Amino acid sequence: MINIFDFILPTKIRYGKGIIEVLGEELRLLNAKKVMVITDKGLAKTDMLKKLIFIIQKEGIDFVIYDAIEANPKDYNVEDCAAKAREISADTLVAFGGGSPIDAAKAVAVLAKQGGKVRDYQGKGKIKDDCLPLLTIPTTAGTGSEVTFSSVITDTKEKFKFTIKSTAIAAKTAIIDPELTLTVPPMTTAATGIDALTHAIEGYTANCTEPIAEAVGLYAVEYIAKNIVEAVKNGSNLEARDKMMMGSLLAGLSFSHADVASVHCMAEALGSIYDAPHGMCNSILLPYVMEYNLPEAGYKYARIARAMGIDEADDNKAAEKGIEHIKQLSREIGLPVIKSLNVNPDDFELLAEMSVKNGSNASNPRSVTKEDYVMLFNKAYND
Amino acid sequence: MINIFDFILPTKIRYGKGIIEVLGEELRLLNAKKVMVITDKGLAKTDMLKKLIFIIQKEGIDFVIYDAIEANPKDYNVEDCAAKAREISADTLVAFGGGSPIDAAKAVAVLAKQGGKVRDYQGKGKIKDDCLPLLTIPTTAGTGSEVTFSSVITDTKEKFKFTIKSTAIAAKTAIIDPELTLTVPPMTTAATGIDALTHAIEGYTANCTEPIAEAVGLYAVEYIAKNIVEAVKNGSNLEARDKMMMGSLLAGLSFSHADVASVHCMAEALGSIYDAPHGMCNSILLPYVMEYNLPEAGYKYARIARAMGIDEADDNKAAEKGIEHIKQLSREIGLPVIKSLNVNPDDFELLAEMSVKNGSNASNPRSVTKEDYVMLFNKAYND
Repeated sequence: MINIFDFILPTKIRYGKGIIEVLGEELRLLNAKKVMVITDKGLAKTDMLKKLIFIIQKEGIDFVIYDAIEANPKDYNVEDCAAKAREISADTLVAFGGGSPIDAAKAVAVLAKQGGKVRDYQGKGKIKDDCLPLLTIPTTAGTGSEVTFSSVITDTKEKFKFTIKSTAIAAKTAIIDPELTLTVPPMTTAATGIDALTHAIEGYTANCTEPIAEAVGLYAVEYIAKNIVEAVKNGSNLEARDKMMMGSLLAGLSFSHADVASVHCMAEALGSIYDAPHGMCNSILLPYVMEYNLPEAGYKYARIARAMGIDEADDNKAAEKGIEHIKQLSREIGLPVIKSLNVNPDDFELLAEMSVKNGSNASNPRSVTKEDYVMLFNKAYND
Repeated sequence: MINIFDFILPTKIRYGKGIIEVLGEELRLLNAKKVMVITDKGLAKTDMLKKLIFIIQKEGIDFVIYDAIEANPKDYNVEDCAAKAREISADTLVAFGGGSPIDAAKAVAVLAKQGGKVRDYQGKGKIKDDCLPLLTIPTTAGTGSEVTFSSVITDTKEKFKFTIKSTAIAAKTAIIDPELTLTVPPMTTAATGIDALTHAIEGYTANCTEPIAEAVGLYAVEYIAKNIVEAVKNGSNLEARDKMMMGSLLAGLSFSHADVASVHCMAEALGSIYDAPHGMCNSILLPYVMEYNLPEAGYKYARIARAMGIDEADDNKAAEKGIEHIKQLSREIGLPVIKSLNVNPDDFELLAEMSVKNGSNASNPRSVTKEDYVMLFNKAYND
């Protein structure tokens, strides 16, 4: 197969311990005069946010904090936030948080300038270039959203997660400081970490992937698989946190230039109906989808296994051992099983229908029908 | 070690067989009205250039061809070309060629707007943002210059190659079409291919490297090592050409976000004194520098060996086998030894002095003194 692809990275990445200090300098470069900081209620109370505000104030920049973004960000979160941004004439957005505030901020960047409802911007070519400039500061190692071009928002009326996507909503600048993750609790570290692993694996294996996305995706697998247990069990280990943050960034660069696939199709369906944490949904489903994909993705799964440290020359055996290793990692870091989300098996038909309709279904390395998805939900439920 | 780095990619990459067709569209996006096509005398006569001109004309864009760029581009090439660009009020540059026209065009992009001599722009912060927009179209799989921020120019008075570097001189757009390399002769394919391999290895192992540069560098090694023999021996094999072009791109992304190291320090010295092809100089010196670096770079060299397909669990053994494999590849593709460049051993002192002064000397994974460079030149000469 001969490669054909485009590669654009609209985001300037500044990565490192203590790099948050450059926030003032970077806001100046963006010519920010009136900043809206978009975050959630939990983070709004932290010393990290105080530090961030201190830096903005020191720079003499006017700011407002919007902290009402919920998990699995809702259409009304985005629309309310965008209205406030217009009201105060914000000229720059700073997203501070996990995937929810960052995804919400990307949608706010469009709505604040182009008006309307979030749902209006679903589909290719709907988002014009004129968006509010966005600076992202991730506080979890998982989302990758700080460098991706997409935003996943929940349509609360339809109970359906949908994606808007454009390089115009990507951050102009991402400030990625692993120190910000030192206080993330073990369960969140575990779920977001396996979320990042899912991004890496789906980015590396997606039908539409390309060699740059493959290279960073495969490298991300190594960073994450070799450090997730330590990051969960000893959260104050900066080296493990650094490696997880780096893995999440590499994974974000991978899937944004390829796509995610069936794990995300199923996880987004679960998140839509049960409002369950996205990372946790991914982490529960990942090994089952990998088992299903094995006949088509064996060679790449073998390479994934070797990147995780599995020494096995035979591709088939390596691939199988890799999947087993991921299951074992999930158990070791205490991730729950699907039943703990209070999932009702009667919903599997609906969840499968939502999964098959997901825009990333076509990117899965093995074709998946609605029936296959029902089977996969049942398998995860009964395991 | 905790990671700290910035990552910026100012170039939009469009890659693929036949992708040259998007040239018109991309020039329109750059708002080009008067294009200067910068190339060399050999390429000026090709059907490829005719096709490129046909596309520009079809778009109704005015253009001038400047074809006087020499190998190891000289200061006077750049200064003459920049004067012409000003004279005709060119608003966009298209670099078409191997590393020489592309490197020259980057320097022209500065001089045409900011005046002066090329040498004025050596050193950090000398190049201002206001450069002519540049679109690059590589015709060899080797340079990586289509996506890097640096340009290596020969100071003809001092007989010294120097580098100017800034994201401002990077291409706005790179159109990378492996079909353009189908007619590259075997010896050029060999030399430029090992040049790309050197970029990948030095980018992956440089002291100042970071994980994104490592990921793409290591992946590049695999692409290049597994396809170079076929590309040299069967130049019309598009799949091999595609893989080599992709390897060169990945390698360019790697070293531009890290650095090159001692192979380049020595090769640029050789190129300065003997005007020898850069790729060939690199290819001759690569295994000797690797042998020297072994005590410091063993683990990474082992990974490089495994990326080339060497199945060896012990790191030290793998690293040694990897170096041997590179020597063997060079022999298999018919690369010459250093004596064929008519090198005079009396010059080794001078060449070593130039190598140690090279800005990339500090990036080598093992520290190298002038005496070490003399030893390395002697070793390559007497082998």
